[in-house]
Amino acid sequence: MAILPQNFSLLTDLYQLTMAYGYWKEKREEEEATFHLFYRKPPFGGSYALTAGLQQAVEFIQNFHLSETELSYLRGLRGNDGQPLFEEAFLTYLADLRFEGNLWAMPEGSLVFPHEPILRIEGRLPICQLLETPLLNIINFQTLIATKASRIKQAAGEQAVLEFGLRRAQGMDGGLSASRAAYIGGCSATSNVLAGQFFGIPVKGTHAHSWVMSYEDEAESFEAYARAMPNNSILLVDTYDTLEGIRKAIGVGKKLESEGYAFGGVRLDSGDLVRLSIAAREMLDAAGLPEAAVVASNDLDEFRIQALKAHGAKIDVWGVGTRLATAYDQPALGGVYKLGAIRTPGEAWRYKLKLSEQEIKISNPGRLMVKRYQVKGQWVGDVIYDEALGMNGKPEGIPAEAEAQDVLVPVLQAGEVVFPFPKLADIQARAKEALQGLPVRMKSLTAPASSPVSLAPSLAEKKSILVKEARGQRVSQPY
Amino acid sequence: MAILPQNFSLLTDLYQLTMAYGYWKEKREEEEATFHLFYRKPPFGGSYALTAGLQQAVEFIQNFHLSETELSYLRGLRGNDGQPLFEEAFLTYLADLRFEGNLWAMPEGSLVFPHEPILRIEGRLPICQLLETPLLNIINFQTLIATKASRIKQAAGEQAVLEFGLRRAQGMDGGLSASRAAYIGGCSATSNVLAGQFFGIPVKGTHAHSWVMSYEDEAESFEAYARAMPNNSILLVDTYDTLEGIRKAIGVGKKLESEGYAFGGVRLDSGDLVRLSIAAREMLDAAGLPEAAVVASNDLDEFRIQALKAHGAKIDVWGVGTRLATAYDQPALGGVYKLGAIRTPGEAWRYKLKLSEQEIKISNPGRLMVKRYQVKGQWVGDVIYDEALGMNGKPEGIPAEAEAQDVLVPVLQAGEVVFPFPKLADIQARAKEALQGLPVRMKSLTAPASSPVSLAPSLAEKKSILVKEARGQRVSQPY
Repeated sequence: MAILPQNFSLLTDLYQLTMAYGYWKEKREEEEATFHLFYRKPPFGGSYALTAGLQQAVEFIQNFHLSETELSYLRGLRGNDGQPLFEEAFLTYLADLRFEGNLWAMPEGSLVFPHEPILRIEGRLPICQLLETPLLNIINFQTLIATKASRIKQAAGEQAVLEFGLRRAQGMDGGLSASRAAYIGGCSATSNVLAGQFFGIPVKGTHAHSWVMSYEDEAESFEAYARAMPNNSILLVDTYDTLEGIRKAIGVGKKLESEGYAFGGVRLDSGDLVRLSIAAREMLDAAGLPEAAVVASNDLDEFRIQALKAHGAKIDVWGVGTRLATAYDQPALGGVYKLGAIRTPGEAWRYKLKLSEQEIKISNPGRLMVKRYQVKGQWVGDVIYDEALGMNGKPEGIPAEAEAQDVLVPVLQAGEVVFPFPKLADIQARAKEALQGLPVRMKSLTAPASSPVSLAPSLAEKKSILVKEARGQRVSQPY
Repeated sequence: MAILPQNFSLLTDLYQLTMAYGYWKEKREEEEATFHLFYRKPPFGGSYALTAGLQQAVEFIQNFHLSETELSYLRGLRGNDGQPLFEEAFLTYLADLRFEGNLWAMPEGSLVFPHEPILRIEGRLPICQLLETPLLNIINFQTLIATKASRIKQAAGEQAVLEFGLRRAQGMDGGLSASRAAYIGGCSATSNVLAGQFFGIPVKGTHAHSWVMSYEDEAESFEAYARAMPNNSILLVDTYDTLEGIRKAIGVGKKLESEGYAFGGVRLDSGDLVRLSIAAREMLDAAGLPEAAVVASNDLDEFRIQALKAHGAKIDVWGVGTRLATAYDQPALGGVYKLGAIRTPGEAWRYKLKLSEQEIKISNPGRLMVKRYQVKGQWVGDVIYDEALGMNGKPEGIPAEAEAQDVLVPVLQAGEVVFPFPKLADIQARAKEALQGLPVRMKSLTAPASSPVSLAPSLAEKKSILVKEARGQRVSQPY
């Protein structure tokens, strides 16, 4: 048996299928909808998120296809009355179902603030519903991890961050896509070889405690490792006694250097990383090995890295695993996918919103875009606007000299890819540049300033009318 | 481009490959090792974990095979000196590498306590290292989620729990294997259609807010849904005003019942679930719809379900998403994989352990088994023992009448599957029985009694000798 399905097209919630069935039964399957995917609250107590996952999301859409295998499974589903859940004619309809609509999205590696659409999808109602779950699954997770990685990289500063999370990641693809998103967010490399192969991310690694334990003697194990990989030896020194381990590693390192090789350094994976890293640095320097690196790992995240640095730790490379690959302190981004507008083909769009007693949960109606304002590459503000209502000039609070740019770009048109997907390294560079352009006060890891994102006045007014009407139970308005 | 790789064999840490290379360079590739996979601290502040993931883990092992595609990628890897990281002859060695050893494991749905091997693997050093990462990835995550589900199910009691987590799960397989593990832990069904297709798990679902929003009027949307699925209608009532929504749903429900259909009930997804569920129950009963269910969701977990029930909520079915599928309050199980023994073919096993300044982090040496004692199906204690040293009689504190059973069973022998993998429903039943046999004091969600698991005296003595020797730097002992 294969460890994973060949076709992921049914990776959706059953209610997407029952709704699609409902639309089809009601002969509404040709109606078109606009959905926006956005989050309401920045993760990790920060002010922003960093987008990731778009390419996989688009690949999911392009690969969407219910073959006879999937239809046969659906044919066997039974309702509460023991009867088939779906009529055969609906399955025939599903067999031909593809996404033939339009998709706008923020390129990966973009800053995104609360309520801004990361993507806007327009197409027939049933397919847009079926795609809701996978799009949320893919974008929510990769955006979460890219954001986490950007925070960790910020704490590390100029020092490299390596992602080591696979063994504790949430499933095989949890590990695979975490490695990808972590790289976008600023990690230099991953330990995950499959991510290296599949996504072209640089891979790094040394050896484990078991290597040392497999020898009768620690020094012997270091010598053997150095023999096998003389130019690629970072030695793990904490299997028995760390300071003793550093001494033995230095012996091996000096021998390597005397033979013309470059000694990589030592890795600390437990204990007091402040004290041990200072000791390691001093011992390496005293031994004439100033180029040898001190690599540290052990449940690190942005806060621990910040604290270790504040306490004077002498660490050159940070290995970050579980807390990055699972976004340990907030393991889910609460992204949602909300209906903004709907139309019968040939007719005008009608605005849609979801009410809530909580103001923050009332969705923005329309077919939305995001205008981003920058002054000399520095971010100064975003405005969410409706494409038809327009911006109506530069909003208040934005400097006159600011340059404006639409953040959402066309990705699919009539189902065809129109966006040149960048290389992963270019996405990483884009993310770095975007973060450099974000004011320092918004990048505080603990108490950042919130983002001055507003609705365009024309959209705010429309929304206010719609809310009043919806509370009176009329829930849409001609576009 | 495929959304996921065809071959997952490189889903491992690079250091597993560099160590394998080191063993091969040192001509130690025929040496055999015993590794144990275990965790040190029960998740969620509980006393136990519930095993899951074995079948996928074994499928991973059985599918392991580095084809020319993978070897070609490895051939291109460069070390710090710009030279190929691996020699060509090593790649030739890897091409033929398969797991030909033995695997013992706790069947899925077993209770497992700290330090007990969930699995014990014996085979050649290089392949056992390469498998470390994927085995940890698969077993850690599924065991974590099965355990979380068992706690949520315990809080729900006789009421059904549905798993709805896919949209917030960590990646595509994060969602897929979470659904599987949640079912093992006691969920009745999932919303995840692919999990239904791939694993045969029952699937459930109703409709979303977008269904309601796509109509001009809420009542009209309920009527349309009921027309499309007259016997499968659970209506989501909180799109605008919840009490008003319940009234409209009741109107539709009564019409359905008058036409001979069974009305499913209502779903609440926001607001004060205590107040709203009591109101919904009263309104449904007053309308002569006592069979209609009240389904509730909204960031639920075991603690919230417990609190809602304590406050008198009248909820029949619990829909649990993010907090289950990501194990939100502890999104990783800290499972580890430690060397217990090693041997040159034809020679005796040598014991191995990893030291640590923290007592809890010193691994157990040997080739371990777990003896479980029960009195009339009630769990009374576990003992970890070494296969060669044996049990030496029933340990202290275990009642004389207790029946003993080895929890680890043979799964692979010389690389071949010798264990009949049960159906998922049978694994769920096994888990349920195991939990019923666990004393109530150990199942408290907040402050459980810890588990009386001990080392067999023979093993404890051997470990103590080894620790003393290792601190003196000799780190193994003839088996």
